[in-house]
Amino acid sequence: MKNDEHYIKQTFKLARKAQGGTSPNPLAGALIVKNNKIIAQGFHKKAGLAHAEIEAFRKAKTGVAGSTLYVNLEPCYHFGRTGPCVDEIIKRKISRVVISTLDPNPVVYGKSVKKLKAAGINVTIGILSKEAMRLNEVFFKNMKKNLPFLAAKCAQSLDGKIATRKGVSKWITGDKSRQFSRGLRDRYDCVLAGVNTVLQDSPRLDGPMKVPFKAVLDPDLKIPSNSYLIKNNPQKLIIFTSWRNKNRAGRLPIVAKIFFVKENNGSFDLKMVMRRLYDYGVMSVFIEGGSQTLGSFFDAKLVDKVYFFIAPKIIGGKSALPSVGGKGFASPDDVWLDDMRVQKIGEDVLVTGYPCYRK
Amino acid sequence: MKNDEHYIKQTFKLARKAQGGTSPNPLAGALIVKNNKIIAQGFHKKAGLAHAEIEAFRKAKTGVAGSTLYVNLEPCYHFGRTGPCVDEIIKRKISRVVISTLDPNPVVYGKSVKKLKAAGINVTIGILSKEAMRLNEVFFKNMKKNLPFLAAKCAQSLDGKIATRKGVSKWITGDKSRQFSRGLRDRYDCVLAGVNTVLQDSPRLDGPMKVPFKAVLDPDLKIPSNSYLIKNNPQKLIIFTSWRNKNRAGRLPIVAKIFFVKENNGSFDLKMVMRRLYDYGVMSVFIEGGSQTLGSFFDAKLVDKVYFFIAPKIIGGKSALPSVGGKGFASPDDVWLDDMRVQKIGEDVLVTGYPCYRK
Repeated sequence: MKNDEHYIKQTFKLARKAQGGTSPNPLAGALIVKNNKIIAQGFHKKAGLAHAEIEAFRKAKTGVAGSTLYVNLEPCYHFGRTGPCVDEIIKRKISRVVISTLDPNPVVYGKSVKKLKAAGINVTIGILSKEAMRLNEVFFKNMKKNLPFLAAKCAQSLDGKIATRKGVSKWITGDKSRQFSRGLRDRYDCVLAGVNTVLQDSPRLDGPMKVPFKAVLDPDLKIPSNSYLIKNNPQKLIIFTSWRNKNRAGRLPIVAKIFFVKENNGSFDLKMVMRRLYDYGVMSVFIEGGSQTLGSFFDAKLVDKVYFFIAPKIIGGKSALPSVGGKGFASPDDVWLDDMRVQKIGEDVLVTGYPCYRK
Repeated sequence: MKNDEHYIKQTFKLARKAQGGTSPNPLAGALIVKNNKIIAQGFHKKAGLAHAEIEAFRKAKTGVAGSTLYVNLEPCYHFGRTGPCVDEIIKRKISRVVISTLDPNPVVYGKSVKKLKAAGINVTIGILSKEAMRLNEVFFKNMKKNLPFLAAKCAQSLDGKIATRKGVSKWITGDKSRQFSRGLRDRYDCVLAGVNTVLQDSPRLDGPMKVPFKAVLDPDLKIPSNSYLIKNNPQKLIIFTSWRNKNRAGRLPIVAKIFFVKENNGSFDLKMVMRRLYDYGVMSVFIEGGSQTLGSFFDAKLVDKVYFFIAPKIIGGKSALPSVGGKGFASPDDVWLDDMRVQKIGEDVLVTGYPCYRK
């Protein structure tokens, strides 16, 4: 007999099918189980389309009354673009609901559970809840902090360099890593880079499947009008520049948005940059910085997740560019990674993890 | 029925039992198989004691005539401290010999095989030969280059730093890594550090099981007479200093050896340092950093193997100390790692590999 954990894992798999496509909504999967057999399943495909529970109800060919519903996230309580799932569950006479985590959205948090219980439904909460929070790491960050989830990537040698003393950075990691890394752009709403990276590497910052928003931090407004990012899909380009360039900004072709921000000793308040992006509808950001850009985001304690692609190479050199520049931390215990994972990608190694910052 | 590969792997296991104890001899294991049954086995324990083949012959309780002998390394041909194994094999009427690799020692290379064949013995060579060369990586380096095998270790954050911008380096990696790292000292003849590491960290540089030679690179002869390394087992301390300190060296208590070497722009000719150690009888060296020391050995293309202990931490900072300092390489393709392996040690990751240098 399959247990709750087994079915909850299935909801994760279902939910993940829409990875990168549901923003600003969370990933959600639902499973209806009767007499220990799955009778229907569904997942949330895109904001505006049916929630996972509704999708599963629609697909059920037999009656669902008396069955158990498995969901990775607490069913919704509020009237959004689709009706509240909680009412539908009660109406369909589901007898038990197994929920991995409560919805961090303060409008929902715990309320649906209360309503289900009041309707006499047996509710179980907390099965694999950490995994469920990681599955919706973007949504949890959004709801708890009103900020975008910020993932950062770098491609370094084993000794932590992203360019040699001569400035050569092409290529450190192999084909497979670079392909994998491009694929990550599809998972996030926005890809961010510093203007120096744009000037030096002319990156496209597009994913293989989608054109994300592309944000460029450009204090001096140095981005050239013939840049790939301006020539192609300018409606996806977001520029952050200093207030002092207010007048010069007119010379640029039309882009999605130019944000003017204050500088502090020549650098932006990056938390403010993140707030602006969030208010603009960007729920997740993927940083493809340079050393300085990535370092500054760490200095501001804003990085939520890292992808370190590590090539089997040694670059060496006191003056070679480190992957994480900026000011840096005073103690080795200031930033540690939770859930560090290691996998081989071609000849390289990918290390992922979730930075935690000492208070 | 077990095949040759199976038995050769057993010889590796046997040989490895004496890891770190056979210098300057190679690790060797021998297996005598008759009618697909192992009838005796042996390994070389220590220079001066019996070779693996002889050990196996001694242990055999039944006659070995007509059996197959498995060895990871070509049997010896020369009269050393024990007689030549090749004659013993012929005398014992072994009918087949399976050898993983030829002996790189020019005095032996291929000669024993020739003699065995001339005696009508069936000889197979080359089963898992790459693994056999790695097993005796120290010996192969010694024989081919007349230099010690040089392994280097560092303990860094994920972003390649070994100290914060404030110089704090204790501790980056966890207990288990540090314990594992100390254990590595038992495998090498000599542990080497720069004098700055000695001054800052007062390391003991001892292994858990043995006191290796400890070499300190000390151009200005700054090592204090009350240093742990001078107070304890000074007969194991080797100091490299500049010729200009010839007179000042007299102030030091008696140590194993003081080598006076030429400087070039304030730094030693490290290849010369390695030659001196080799002539002194040091077959393998384990470098325990600092950034500058490790970087210089890389600059000189002398590092044969690396152990990178990587902590799940981010240190960041343009001015923080990188694991591999020195001058560094011009292209990301100048140094790559062969056989990169990754394993978890406690919370950390250990990456090992064999640097290859572009000609």
